[in-house]
Amino acid sequence: MNMRETGDVKALMRDIGVRARSAARVLGLAESARKTDALEAAGKAIRASKAKILAANAQDIEAAKEQNITAAFLDRLTLTDASIDAIAAGVEMVALLPDPVGEVIADWQQPNGLMFQRVRTPLGVVAVIYESRPNVTADAGSLCLKAGNAVILRGGSDSFHSSRAIHECLVAGLKEAGLPEDAIQLVPTTDRAAVGELLSGLNGNIDVVVPRGGKSLVARVQTEARVPVFAHLEGVCHVYVHAPADLEMAKSIVFNAKMRRTGVCGAAETLLVDKKTAPTHLKPLVEMLLEAGCEVRGDDATRVIDSRVKAATEEDWPAEYLDKIIAVKVVDGLQAAIDHIAKYGSQHTDAIVTDDPSEAEIFLREVDSAIVLHNASTQFADGGEFGFGAEIGIATGRMHARGPVGVEQLTSFKYRVHGNGQIRP
Amino acid sequence: MNMRETGDVKALMRDIGVRARSAARVLGLAESARKTDALEAAGKAIRASKAKILAANAQDIEAAKEQNITAAFLDRLTLTDASIDAIAAGVEMVALLPDPVGEVIADWQQPNGLMFQRVRTPLGVVAVIYESRPNVTADAGSLCLKAGNAVILRGGSDSFHSSRAIHECLVAGLKEAGLPEDAIQLVPTTDRAAVGELLSGLNGNIDVVVPRGGKSLVARVQTEARVPVFAHLEGVCHVYVHAPADLEMAKSIVFNAKMRRTGVCGAAETLLVDKKTAPTHLKPLVEMLLEAGCEVRGDDATRVIDSRVKAATEEDWPAEYLDKIIAVKVVDGLQAAIDHIAKYGSQHTDAIVTDDPSEAEIFLREVDSAIVLHNASTQFADGGEFGFGAEIGIATGRMHARGPVGVEQLTSFKYRVHGNGQIRP
Repeated sequence: MNMRETGDVKALMRDIGVRARSAARVLGLAESARKTDALEAAGKAIRASKAKILAANAQDIEAAKEQNITAAFLDRLTLTDASIDAIAAGVEMVALLPDPVGEVIADWQQPNGLMFQRVRTPLGVVAVIYESRPNVTADAGSLCLKAGNAVILRGGSDSFHSSRAIHECLVAGLKEAGLPEDAIQLVPTTDRAAVGELLSGLNGNIDVVVPRGGKSLVARVQTEARVPVFAHLEGVCHVYVHAPADLEMAKSIVFNAKMRRTGVCGAAETLLVDKKTAPTHLKPLVEMLLEAGCEVRGDDATRVIDSRVKAATEEDWPAEYLDKIIAVKVVDGLQAAIDHIAKYGSQHTDAIVTDDPSEAEIFLREVDSAIVLHNASTQFADGGEFGFGAEIGIATGRMHARGPVGVEQLTSFKYRVHGNGQIRP
Repeated sequence: MNMRETGDVKALMRDIGVRARSAARVLGLAESARKTDALEAAGKAIRASKAKILAANAQDIEAAKEQNITAAFLDRLTLTDASIDAIAAGVEMVALLPDPVGEVIADWQQPNGLMFQRVRTPLGVVAVIYESRPNVTADAGSLCLKAGNAVILRGGSDSFHSSRAIHECLVAGLKEAGLPEDAIQLVPTTDRAAVGELLSGLNGNIDVVVPRGGKSLVARVQTEARVPVFAHLEGVCHVYVHAPADLEMAKSIVFNAKMRRTGVCGAAETLLVDKKTAPTHLKPLVEMLLEAGCEVRGDDATRVIDSRVKAATEEDWPAEYLDKIIAVKVVDGLQAAIDHIAKYGSQHTDAIVTDDPSEAEIFLREVDSAIVLHNASTQFADGGEFGFGAEIGIATGRMHARGPVGVEQLTSFKYRVHGNGQIRP
């Protein structure tokens, strides 16, 4: 590992920032075909470098095993023949996405004849700070490139060799397409001071930071960053079943929202059931979850349903379990559900299941979350499911990007105005 | 004046933040008609309170005169019968703008039948920090209200009484429409520590800060704010005359861009003339400016034109004069002009005058400014001229809002998803 003194890290990072800004200028004006070529070449390079990437990954795994790690951690870190193919396919898929840069997102004419266009431009330089998943190197690198941004990748020390091997393939793609190699830089040190430097904004050379990882990483980035952050701290997602609701649909959506994958940010953590629906729906919903091996922590009204239901405490309502656990509460109607979500939710993703469209509209309007759904699973909180092709993450902030952050959300815009000699009176 | 101890200011400001957030929740869900009513009532109240506002303004003027102020400062501070009418008319004009909240800005269906809508929502709480112009109280307050945001106004101490009198009218409007009075709060102290508190973000209770005023205010806000800022530090705007260019059009645009109003951010500060155009165009352009009383600071090629041209130094190229002064340079073609603007510009507003549309397209594409114009004056850099109805300012950042910040730019969005039982495979 390439450990350095803190003073060196500062100089190293400032230099990375300057080079990123300079690459961003070139990239921002690069033709679409050039970027597509780079991504296709990078995909090929990843497939061709499989042995090298697996060897680098083996180094990381060996080092990690000395550190008494969990199975989940090892799973995130480990690459296989198939997962490397998937990484390459992801890069090639981004290559095929339409280029957002230059897209005219609005145009209009003023009475004086001036023609206005609002046109997408790149954001500039994106810093991505991630943890043990080496695939983020390729996912984030390719999305930023597609949107015409330079990117500075800062992977976790645990996946340092794997990320470096993947990064080399991305750089090979840039080189082949004649684009600046500095367009995708990987921080070449595992020194933690590098993260602090990125969060400082590198003298104005970083436009946005995207943290990818656990809550402590995101919290640190949100607290310390002096530049905008696209992130969500947590996904405390709710499913609210409101009378009248089809029981089979409610069961199917609740099961999927909670159990499809429990570790994703769009997984449901709390089930709210309308008091009017509870007599018919609560028991089948709770038993379905219990029988699937999900721990249920309920309020008093839920506990009487089944002796296996544990007592929920005040700490359960804002909890993001990311596990086979769900909090269940009976609420007194729509407004009580909305109030519960306002108090305990994380403004990420919340769903209502009901046959009453006007009540659903009130829920969609009043629940202040990035994504609100009617009669669909919260697990659709994903850029791919939205049709964005790919995402770099999900944001719960209100600035610039909200919800899934895909290539379009990684752009800015400018105004182009065409006249024929207009002057302002 | 209501001066307080710093400790008190901290508590006072935290309380203002909490009340703003709570008002923002109500306002975010308020019907359009309610907001329109509030603004119309506020406009009426301003007209009805003319005597009171003028008396308050007289107090401010008296205090200011004791401080050896400039004529320009006094001009910004002074209200008249007519200017109060204009303030009221501005509020009533914002009342008539379409409500951006709830507007569907995109909708699409995925193959699984899910219907997606991207819908405008308010941003939340906006803090506006301004200086001596009391009219900002009404302009900023009404725009934020229209977009469903709560606003915290922090006016300069010089216009404290005037701003307070105008603010009372806005609150009267809110009251009459049954909206929370805390939706538009004026910081009731002139203690400068209040600004620091606002810039801290008031414990997450401010979503964006908008500074309105001189460069030192904007610089302080950009440096210290821990929340996003919509602003421009300066407008070093260029007009580039490129061969072939109609001389009369070039004269008309250059004259308007520089001389219409020299103190606005969209005023041209530098004239660049293509080497090929210089033999025919430079002399008439320079003489026109000189004869209009504009000081011309030129490079060597410009100085030989007329003995009244002063020598430009390196400090002139990035200068924002905001006065009857212009820097003039002869450049070697389009790319040299683009490079000059990249080096010395402020990414605000830049224009090209040429009869060659393909060269103009290159300029519009490659100049990285919020607003780029072809054959039109830079003084069109204004939300009203864009058709936005009104603006709270112009932003040169790349995040969220860029260019004129009108009601639409003061909104965020969320995704509404309608299904009929979809679950994620």
